[in-house]
Amino acid sequence: MSRSSSIHSGDGVLRRPSQYVSMDRLNDRLAVMSGYGATPKGGVNRQALTAEDLQAQLQLIRWGAELGMQPSSDSAGNLFLRCEGSDPSLAPVLSGSHLDSQPTGGKFDGVYGVLAALEAVNAMQDAGLNPRRSIEVVSWMNEEGSRFAPGMMGSTAYADPNSLSEMLLVKDAKGVSVREALSLIQDGLREIPCRSLGGHPHAYIEAHIEQGPLLEQQNAVVGVVSGIQGKRTFRVEIIGEATHAGTSPRSKRKDAILAAVRIIDALANRLHDGGDIVKFTVGRLIVEPNAPSVVANRVVFSIDLRHPKSAELTLLGDLILPFCEINARPCSVSLTELSNATSLEFPDAIRDRIRSIASTLKIAHIDLLSAAGHDARYLHKVCPSGMIFVPSRDGITHNEAEYTSAEDLTDGARVLADVLGELST
Amino acid sequence: MSRSSSIHSGDGVLRRPSQYVSMDRLNDRLAVMSGYGATPKGGVNRQALTAEDLQAQLQLIRWGAELGMQPSSDSAGNLFLRCEGSDPSLAPVLSGSHLDSQPTGGKFDGVYGVLAALEAVNAMQDAGLNPRRSIEVVSWMNEEGSRFAPGMMGSTAYADPNSLSEMLLVKDAKGVSVREALSLIQDGLREIPCRSLGGHPHAYIEAHIEQGPLLEQQNAVVGVVSGIQGKRTFRVEIIGEATHAGTSPRSKRKDAILAAVRIIDALANRLHDGGDIVKFTVGRLIVEPNAPSVVANRVVFSIDLRHPKSAELTLLGDLILPFCEINARPCSVSLTELSNATSLEFPDAIRDRIRSIASTLKIAHIDLLSAAGHDARYLHKVCPSGMIFVPSRDGITHNEAEYTSAEDLTDGARVLADVLGELST
Repeated sequence: MSRSSSIHSGDGVLRRPSQYVSMDRLNDRLAVMSGYGATPKGGVNRQALTAEDLQAQLQLIRWGAELGMQPSSDSAGNLFLRCEGSDPSLAPVLSGSHLDSQPTGGKFDGVYGVLAALEAVNAMQDAGLNPRRSIEVVSWMNEEGSRFAPGMMGSTAYADPNSLSEMLLVKDAKGVSVREALSLIQDGLREIPCRSLGGHPHAYIEAHIEQGPLLEQQNAVVGVVSGIQGKRTFRVEIIGEATHAGTSPRSKRKDAILAAVRIIDALANRLHDGGDIVKFTVGRLIVEPNAPSVVANRVVFSIDLRHPKSAELTLLGDLILPFCEINARPCSVSLTELSNATSLEFPDAIRDRIRSIASTLKIAHIDLLSAAGHDARYLHKVCPSGMIFVPSRDGITHNEAEYTSAEDLTDGARVLADVLGELST
Repeated sequence: MSRSSSIHSGDGVLRRPSQYVSMDRLNDRLAVMSGYGATPKGGVNRQALTAEDLQAQLQLIRWGAELGMQPSSDSAGNLFLRCEGSDPSLAPVLSGSHLDSQPTGGKFDGVYGVLAALEAVNAMQDAGLNPRRSIEVVSWMNEEGSRFAPGMMGSTAYADPNSLSEMLLVKDAKGVSVREALSLIQDGLREIPCRSLGGHPHAYIEAHIEQGPLLEQQNAVVGVVSGIQGKRTFRVEIIGEATHAGTSPRSKRKDAILAAVRIIDALANRLHDGGDIVKFTVGRLIVEPNAPSVVANRVVFSIDLRHPKSAELTLLGDLILPFCEINARPCSVSLTELSNATSLEFPDAIRDRIRSIASTLKIAHIDLLSAAGHDARYLHKVCPSGMIFVPSRDGITHNEAEYTSAEDLTDGARVLADVLGELST
């Protein structure tokens, strides 16, 4: 049996799925999805397990139904649309990303990978291809981690089903647990069949916007992702003492905001490197009681630390605790590590295939490392995985101004379509 | 007519209202009030214009009714209970404080001054005194300023009715305006007569907990308040750019949290003085979008700056803008001054009267400056005003652990009762 997904038409012309990828269809679907959680500034607020997230999932299921794809969902809230192959007993090829967004997110982060996979299946059908392996388009639950921390919960649970029970206890800022939010989504999807959590696919390919400036800077359209840089995330809690802003002498205060300021300033200075490789971010900070004339008695903040080299990441992350302890005084401080993901490399076989298809299609491409984490990090643990990047204008992402041109989105989907075509043949 | 509030009973014994002040009654009423907005840790969350605030006001009206006091409220949400004097045409003596609290406030801040004034009226009635001037017990709207900033709105509007219209537009963190919150309270008080805003009382006396450690340190029970230290409040808004924590290089970021950290750290260092006189507090800080893996694009924080010397306060407050501008880069920053109150001295006549009564009652007392702002600041503009402090254990206030002994509370009320007795005679 041929390993190629191309076919010869009656007139002898070679057909590849990429030829049937439709820019209009892909962009129309992206525009429809942008309506679920649309923000006034042109972005998207479609956080995990919200009503907007459910609406987007229902829309995806309707599009899948038009293509004869069978939906199913697992106990971690991951959604799958299956295009049955000629041999259903074979392990399927998975492709997708996530439909959830940051609170002030853009129109492309995550949703592009899901709709590019759907477009690839659509193109294969239009090409009259009937692959041997089933293809499953997937949307992973809570990739972003903004409502429920940490992110990538769905793919983590898929790769390690035992991790689910602890995730279900995580609560959002309003005290709603993942378990509670998930049951609302499951109620909205009650007509969709359930599937067991986890699996061993033949391969997983994720298309995504770059979220960085490299493709744009190098005039490339497709990034062949070599791997994902490591990331450690932490939660710092400072306990001070609430007292009156006008009367308590400074020497007697335990000011939790001043302690947080000292810790963040010291870490930002220490973790600054000349080569601008380390990524250190405090993005979330909560103050109690948060009143102008009360010295704060509690501050909780997040730390997101990344480095492409795992050894360096370990070393830098281990500096955080002593920096917290020295600078918190006279407040007390506790540090909790929420996640620790080492840097990883995707297998050469997948990267070579993506590179070779991009070359065949004459799409300008480069190899690059993903600075952001993705669901592919966890799929990498259970099957050969890889990623295809398309450019982000000015490298801006997690922002309502996030933008990728229709042409670039389409070229990424064309590469994906041929990769999935080959893998499923 | 005698200027003394004491009377001779049939047996020739001198009676003063202080003799009729009841520790049990005062503390029972304080305990009842602590129930409105009670927190699990034994404090109070009774923020301005909330349902809990309304409940406390209705309770005060019921107690006033038992003493034949006529309630009324003005368009700024101030509540008055009037004990009619023998000559109702004379300007009344006002006494009170506020019923609202900080989000994690104590049981005494504000409410003590209102209930001590009620106790003074109760004691005068028990003593059979019939003063010439009416006495009005008052609860001022939104002294704390935690829900709606700045504080002392009710007393500010009473002293300057033109200031009300701007206050009504102020919104809380949920977007509810003072106007909207006030109309809910007014609806709950619809059976209470309205009175016009403002007035020119004969005098205003406010009892309050010290909110500092000086009385305790000097073994004094009553503080004769010489004046109030000046205070300037500001709102700092930093605009950065939201971007991805894993991908955006540090050199390209506009991180609003890091800008805030640099500004606060620089100001805290500059404003630290060896004598520990300056009070600089950042108590409120809000981050957007406040997600762990997104560089913050907006931070808003409060500055509360106090100094007993007005000239020094002006000088230090004027340093804030350049410190913000230098440290915000590459973010942009704007500074808004919300209030600027110079230091003030209460008139000698009122202070002498309080001191002399405390001496007569053999209650240990000292003169001291109020480090905290109070409604008396604004009443000082329209009539001779003064304040009586009682000790705060360990100087702790704006905290659920705030504590003053029943004996000290009662001694303060005894001094207040005789002061009001003399002023109303």
